[in-house]
Amino acid sequence: MIYDVAIVGGGPAGLAAAVNARRRNKQTVLISKEIMSSKIIQAHQIENYLGIPQISGPELMERMRKHAEVEGAINIKDEIQSIYPEEQLFNLVGRENAVEARTVVLAPGVSTTAEIAGEAEYAGRGISYCATCDGMFFKNKSVAMVGYIPEAEAEAAFLAEICAKVYYFPQYQPATDLDSRLVIVQGKPKAISGEGKVELLTTTAGEFEVAGVFIERAGRPVDQLMDGLHVENGFILVDYTQATNLPGVFAAGDCTGKPWQISRAVGQGQVAALSAVHYLSEVMG
Amino acid sequence: MIYDVAIVGGGPAGLAAAVNARRRNKQTVLISKEIMSSKIIQAHQIENYLGIPQISGPELMERMRKHAEVEGAINIKDEIQSIYPEEQLFNLVGRENAVEARTVVLAPGVSTTAEIAGEAEYAGRGISYCATCDGMFFKNKSVAMVGYIPEAEAEAAFLAEICAKVYYFPQYQPATDLDSRLVIVQGKPKAISGEGKVELLTTTAGEFEVAGVFIERAGRPVDQLMDGLHVENGFILVDYTQATNLPGVFAAGDCTGKPWQISRAVGQGQVAALSAVHYLSEVMG
Repeated sequence: MIYDVAIVGGGPAGLAAAVNARRRNKQTVLISKEIMSSKIIQAHQIENYLGIPQISGPELMERMRKHAEVEGAINIKDEIQSIYPEEQLFNLVGRENAVEARTVVLAPGVSTTAEIAGEAEYAGRGISYCATCDGMFFKNKSVAMVGYIPEAEAEAAFLAEICAKVYYFPQYQPATDLDSRLVIVQGKPKAISGEGKVELLTTTAGEFEVAGVFIERAGRPVDQLMDGLHVENGFILVDYTQATNLPGVFAAGDCTGKPWQISRAVGQGQVAALSAVHYLSEVMG
Repeated sequence: MIYDVAIVGGGPAGLAAAVNARRRNKQTVLISKEIMSSKIIQAHQIENYLGIPQISGPELMERMRKHAEVEGAINIKDEIQSIYPEEQLFNLVGRENAVEARTVVLAPGVSTTAEIAGEAEYAGRGISYCATCDGMFFKNKSVAMVGYIPEAEAEAAFLAEICAKVYYFPQYQPATDLDSRLVIVQGKPKAISGEGKVELLTTTAGEFEVAGVFIERAGRPVDQLMDGLHVENGFILVDYTQATNLPGVFAAGDCTGKPWQISRAVGQGQVAALSAVHYLSEVMG
């Protein structure tokens, strides 16, 4: 199955892109860990989504999710780790699935967790956001996993199978039955450093000599998703059609910058989908 | 009364701007001939406004109108003819009202009537969109009025008081009691021409020697609204904050280009209002 439009992210921008791509009768897949926006889910009341004067965050998300469902968008529950261009196609690789599509709409939102000092600098040189993808590079070495979400626990356990030592730094209240091979450390990460590659993780609980630092948080830096994607200050650069610098790749919502607002995300998701549809007919013929 | 934000246009972009400016507690006025979008009112069913899977055009407009009303935006029923900057202020001049505001959000939509050949070329050289404003320049001369809407009749009658001769070209089924001083001609305008200024109106009913052509339609070319506003191919140029080239002036919705879509307009209206709010605090202090 080769999809016409693959959408990365299940918040308002992604759902709007899904509805609009489906309205244009395109084979549409939406890939996201969850159909939700963590920021909206926490909103007690939303009063500026035009046409709906008052609604709770969870209820608005549910209405948006249903709308995309009604329109027939396929939903795959996964988190995209990387997107590789192949000729006339994109290969989207998740933790458990791989999807092929002719166009891509990036709508992953923004990470609400601050980056660790050194994180951007050592990207690709010992920093990883996917244990399943990169774990084997660190076979028999010592690594650290900084987990902001419980999903990190299973990833850390997998690393424990292949690495010499795995320091696990939970940044939340962790489960009590963590894998016994993990070295659990209660501390916040402060900095990543090393000579050209990761060698040291400095934390509030001391320094740790490691060859790799795995970081598991809700959302991930967008510039890690695709090689060559133009990103500025952490935001994907788009033009007024929501096109990125990569042909066939569009972006919408909070990942393109502020203000982080629902209507803005929905409008951009719509435009991104329509631009993808236009690209399919004009460029790919 | 000096408003913080004056919004020109009562479609989805204008209403979204009004809701968001009010949510930020700004004194907000929305000026429009009608709270509606003629394109939406004609829509039997709208299925791509995220969160509301199916709704008729008139019902969606009514929900949007009510939302802005609930938030306390002042609504003035008028059509803005010109906007003049004064120091730290804008003066918005309508047919019957003048409004002062610190910032402006332009959301007039697009005219669905094609321009007459020569219309753009002779702008300011014999073409006018406001008899009340410009009529005196044509005192004792012959002029033509091309009326696409019944509102043109009163404007034509005013011209008949001061001009030597007024040819009236109704582009709709006109009333039967038109001002007796008007020369009613049943014909479609084809071209405006002249040596450096308007001299001739060519129509399907023949040629007419006139010093001025007044054009009265629903909506008007946006580049006539403000001196110096950057417009390209009939659309107002904006950056990603919806700012125009004129400080304090923002634009949103169909007037900024295609695709002409409700969610896009709502998102842009929101961003324009938030940018105006930011301008008020950062630039005006």
